[in-house]
Amino acid sequence: MTNYKRKNRLTAQAYIDGVLRGDRVILSRAITIIESNLESDKLLAKDIIQAILPASGNSIRIGITGVPGVGKSTFIEAFGKHLITKGHKVAILSIDPSSQRSKGSILGDKTRMEELSNLENAYIRPSASGDTLGGVANKTAESMLLCEAGGYDVILIETVGVGQSETAVHGMTDFFLLLMLAGAGDELQGIKKGIMEMADMVVINKADGDNVRMSEMARLQYQNALHIFPQSESGWEPVVTKASSTKNIGIDTVWEEISKYKQLVTDNGYFDKNRNYQKIRWMYDNINEELKHMFYGSKDISSQLSVLEKDIISDEISPVKAAQQIIEKFKASF
Amino acid sequence: MTNYKRKNRLTAQAYIDGVLRGDRVILSRAITIIESNLESDKLLAKDIIQAILPASGNSIRIGITGVPGVGKSTFIEAFGKHLITKGHKVAILSIDPSSQRSKGSILGDKTRMEELSNLENAYIRPSASGDTLGGVANKTAESMLLCEAGGYDVILIETVGVGQSETAVHGMTDFFLLLMLAGAGDELQGIKKGIMEMADMVVINKADGDNVRMSEMARLQYQNALHIFPQSESGWEPVVTKASSTKNIGIDTVWEEISKYKQLVTDNGYFDKNRNYQKIRWMYDNINEELKHMFYGSKDISSQLSVLEKDIISDEISPVKAAQQIIEKFKASF
Repeated sequence: MTNYKRKNRLTAQAYIDGVLRGDRVILSRAITIIESNLESDKLLAKDIIQAILPASGNSIRIGITGVPGVGKSTFIEAFGKHLITKGHKVAILSIDPSSQRSKGSILGDKTRMEELSNLENAYIRPSASGDTLGGVANKTAESMLLCEAGGYDVILIETVGVGQSETAVHGMTDFFLLLMLAGAGDELQGIKKGIMEMADMVVINKADGDNVRMSEMARLQYQNALHIFPQSESGWEPVVTKASSTKNIGIDTVWEEISKYKQLVTDNGYFDKNRNYQKIRWMYDNINEELKHMFYGSKDISSQLSVLEKDIISDEISPVKAAQQIIEKFKASF
Repeated sequence: MTNYKRKNRLTAQAYIDGVLRGDRVILSRAITIIESNLESDKLLAKDIIQAILPASGNSIRIGITGVPGVGKSTFIEAFGKHLITKGHKVAILSIDPSSQRSKGSILGDKTRMEELSNLENAYIRPSASGDTLGGVANKTAESMLLCEAGGYDVILIETVGVGQSETAVHGMTDFFLLLMLAGAGDELQGIKKGIMEMADMVVINKADGDNVRMSEMARLQYQNALHIFPQSESGWEPVVTKASSTKNIGIDTVWEEISKYKQLVTDNGYFDKNRNYQKIRWMYDNINEELKHMFYGSKDISSQLSVLEKDIISDEISPVKAAQQIIEKFKASF
């Protein structure tokens, strides 16, 4: 294997062994390697991933989204504790491409899930930071593989519920769960177009006390609304339930439904089919991102693009001609 | 200008003049140039587009979709005739990337809209053929510009309602209209996920005779369902209406709603903003398609990709590493 010269680094084999025997400290340090942008760490990360790859995949991967205020961390804490009671090992990752700029990740403050983070069978990791969603998503997906190799059989991947990160999470999970609130007004809930349609399950959270009746109304409304969507390829009909994370109501139902889903898609072959599709897709996403980077990463190109944009808006050049012109220049630059 | 040597071709200026004075025969011949894959025609097409560009854009562009059987041609016939009565010039284009393989375009048979096609102020053009949706969409969008330069102030762009062509149509139109049937069962209607959310208007077609009550129920159902989506950037709240194309009921309402929309988005600035966005987007779509073509068009690359796909599925290589490997080979090939 490659010779890694950076200090404070173990050998690749030490990371691999540690991860495979379920050592949480080594797992954390291995994920740090994955998240690192140092060239030497990238080589190290490649070797680690390559070695643990056959041990990955034995899990159910659950994407969880919902806007801030919907009670995501409280839900994940209650849900995670329930899963651990059931004998599972739970890893909680997140995707938040904005975490670098805001200098604080949505999961950076572990104390938000204090009880859960103290449990032996829970592993909580804040979002990787990075400039591009693609980069952050790559790191999260590779961290997920490490967690699986470490024996975590339920992976929860949280998103912030704004922007494009939901699509990335949907593309790397088996089941997609959307948290909503009753009566918040849909515009206010800020759920982006298209997210509702990715949901395998909608959970109306905070369904307790005075909120129970409204939550049941919301549940029916969403259940009816979801019926207008065509059935997904998985053969699964999305369900809408109520839950109270603080009173621990309906949390068991969420897991029951996910288990039913798992059974259905295992039996009908969709589980494996979708996993394979996602893996292949993952390669192509990386290729396409790199191709774009080759082009748009050039300073010369980007200054020409701004000029062309202006000319297009003023109808001085057609968009198709503009594209041809700049692609020809790009080709000639080799 | 370029010297075009192909026979049966006019000079670029002859096409340009003909299109601008509203000559339908010349318009048709110019669109044939746009659709041609001959290199000499592509040069000619560029000059034509470039010259008519400033005269394009004075229209409302309406995308119309719905599955086969929903009565799309009958609706378009009724709607087109109504528009002409109101003093408009109507061009009807379509996007059907499958038209080449099936050897028959959805609009190829003009007799389907016999009355409309005989009207002086209607221009009907079957879908361009092509191997890729991007290519077909390009040709349709450029044909649209020619029609506008020819004085057509309402452009209807029809899709077949399956696959990805709806997104392409949505990306080149101002208003997106979805035709549905009452009680057909949503799975049966085969509307792809995401299409419902693009709709500015849903029309329940065939709302006549015994079907009126069911159509009203469907209308209410869809109207409620659309409320769960967040408001679109246009500020427009999607409407759901009933219509009967054969009995000419509700056709006027469709145009009234589109006119209201036009007024709203003109006043709030979204109309121009969206048009500019679409033009810029059009350039980038072409660039990205060309970048992909440079890579995936290589025979060597595509045979390597099939090997990598197999290795990824059997966990012999990680998707990220596979992507890096092939990109490095691609770079080295220059």
